[in-house]
Amino acid sequence: MLKRSVKTMALVVLSSLFISSQGCANESKDEWITLGTMAGPIPNAVNSQPANAMIVNGNTYVVDAGDGTAGQLAKAGLSLKGVKAVFISHLHFDHTGGLPAILGLRWQTNTFSDLTVYGPPGTKATVEGIFQFMRIGTEGGYGVPGQVGKPANTNVHVVELGDGDTVTNDDFSVTAIRNTHYSWPENSEEWKKYIALSYKFDVDGASVVYTGDTGESKALIALAKNADLLVSEMMDIDHTIDLVVKANPNMPEQVALGMRKHLSNHHVTPQQVGEMATQANVKKLVVTHMSPALLKPEHYEKYTSAVAEHYDGDVTLAKDLDRFPIGK
Amino acid sequence: MLKRSVKTMALVVLSSLFISSQGCANESKDEWITLGTMAGPIPNAVNSQPANAMIVNGNTYVVDAGDGTAGQLAKAGLSLKGVKAVFISHLHFDHTGGLPAILGLRWQTNTFSDLTVYGPPGTKATVEGIFQFMRIGTEGGYGVPGQVGKPANTNVHVVELGDGDTVTNDDFSVTAIRNTHYSWPENSEEWKKYIALSYKFDVDGASVVYTGDTGESKALIALAKNADLLVSEMMDIDHTIDLVVKANPNMPEQVALGMRKHLSNHHVTPQQVGEMATQANVKKLVVTHMSPALLKPEHYEKYTSAVAEHYDGDVTLAKDLDRFPIGK
Repeated sequence: MLKRSVKTMALVVLSSLFISSQGCANESKDEWITLGTMAGPIPNAVNSQPANAMIVNGNTYVVDAGDGTAGQLAKAGLSLKGVKAVFISHLHFDHTGGLPAILGLRWQTNTFSDLTVYGPPGTKATVEGIFQFMRIGTEGGYGVPGQVGKPANTNVHVVELGDGDTVTNDDFSVTAIRNTHYSWPENSEEWKKYIALSYKFDVDGASVVYTGDTGESKALIALAKNADLLVSEMMDIDHTIDLVVKANPNMPEQVALGMRKHLSNHHVTPQQVGEMATQANVKKLVVTHMSPALLKPEHYEKYTSAVAEHYDGDVTLAKDLDRFPIGK
Repeated sequence: MLKRSVKTMALVVLSSLFISSQGCANESKDEWITLGTMAGPIPNAVNSQPANAMIVNGNTYVVDAGDGTAGQLAKAGLSLKGVKAVFISHLHFDHTGGLPAILGLRWQTNTFSDLTVYGPPGTKATVEGIFQFMRIGTEGGYGVPGQVGKPANTNVHVVELGDGDTVTNDDFSVTAIRNTHYSWPENSEEWKKYIALSYKFDVDGASVVYTGDTGESKALIALAKNADLLVSEMMDIDHTIDLVVKANPNMPEQVALGMRKHLSNHHVTPQQVGEMATQANVKKLVVTHMSPALLKPEHYEKYTSAVAEHYDGDVTLAKDLDRFPIGK
């Protein structure tokens, strides 16, 4: 028994080391941090896949979790131990690919505080898949005879949200709406099963709206009305088409038109981002999830100007690890 | 039908854009690239979780896949489309956390070339979990009515390897052995189920040995005998103990001794790394998977010296994205 308890104590002590060596978050103010600012699904050499952190009262809320989110949190000075919840906008893998590592590394550092994953219908099945992915690793544990690992799902909760749902926790209220990233016929089976969400976070009198991936959407403009901060996706459809045409000089015009229509339905151009911010009368606009990848300062200047033609307010095209205060 | 075929063509064209915009790997020579050089499970702000890429004949083989591996591949100029196989040393999440994103982003960029995941027993169940994680995302696809997404497991294969197994592909032969990262009693149920592997890759007349996580191991020294390149983990047990003692000044001496024994069994110190390289008579030693995190140049110098006290050959403490030629 003594031998066993020594092992147990050693693991507890190691766990406390993990806490002390993880660095401290800046807990002095509420803020939004763009952890990953390029659109997926192609990994980018400069900026990471879609991910954000919202810090409220010193707690960390991850909003979308693309590949490498755990590492990006560390670069932002944030510990996995401080993550209270993860909000997933939709179940494309450029927005979820980093979630298995978050849950796995949490487990591996003995972090068993409550964590809730919020997302659209299908999020429960998706997270159950992560628990299956983790099963053998948790059962084998650290290879210490007699040590029994806790189940992968320990204190991990999932809440699926539909159009118009609002939930409240200690730090804020959040409302989800269905946006237009998918174009299923209304009331079809797919329309009921596969939903892309935009979120509004009401944080201590300030509101932050995160579009996720979306096309133009009246519901989204209504959600964002008078928001203090709008964090929007953006896709340069024209530039994307140009790249495709150059790479495929024999592409029939009809195909180009079809592709343009398809992309336009599911994403928003710089003009549309600016118009949305104006129509919603938001106080501050942050653009993220950019496509194609922005690599040079002039790319950022170009698109900032393109958005600003349609929105007079404060606009920033975000880079990875940029921080934006949340507050009136 | 015309409408449908236009959509299909548009997706094919987009897929070709993905290819053309992903940049080109350096395909002129075989090499080992350390994509992530710090030990897990705590994410590090400077260097990534354990991951490597081995380039042979222009093909990419990922060796361990911690969080952010897809992004690290992009930083190394490598496309996900070029990944032919992933080798997992053991099923701790700091070595597997980036695999779901690799498989998910592959799918999302219409990459359906063959990919094989090699790993210890339990790898099949682990990858099946990833397919479950991907199920809803693949079924919903891009939200285009009439478009049916391919299953998550399309052309993804899993091969489980045990102690002494050798497999051969077009580019190399690989041999796996059981190392000492786990300390199950021999022939126990756990010993049969949970195995940590080291790998030897025989590449066009040169041999590369990757320790994975391990304690001292005679089998590993035998595997590495006369290797051209040994890529080894390393843990500074003394420094780790010091940190723990400082953080827990009242820790009983017996607990410290128990912890030291536990860590020593499952990892190798700088001295042990050097001794292993000498005993195996390897031509070149690359040290990665360092613990605690190395953040300053003097940390690298200190541990390089510590290893070099016990090994006269060429030694490098790797940083993320370092490249090492493979060849006689």
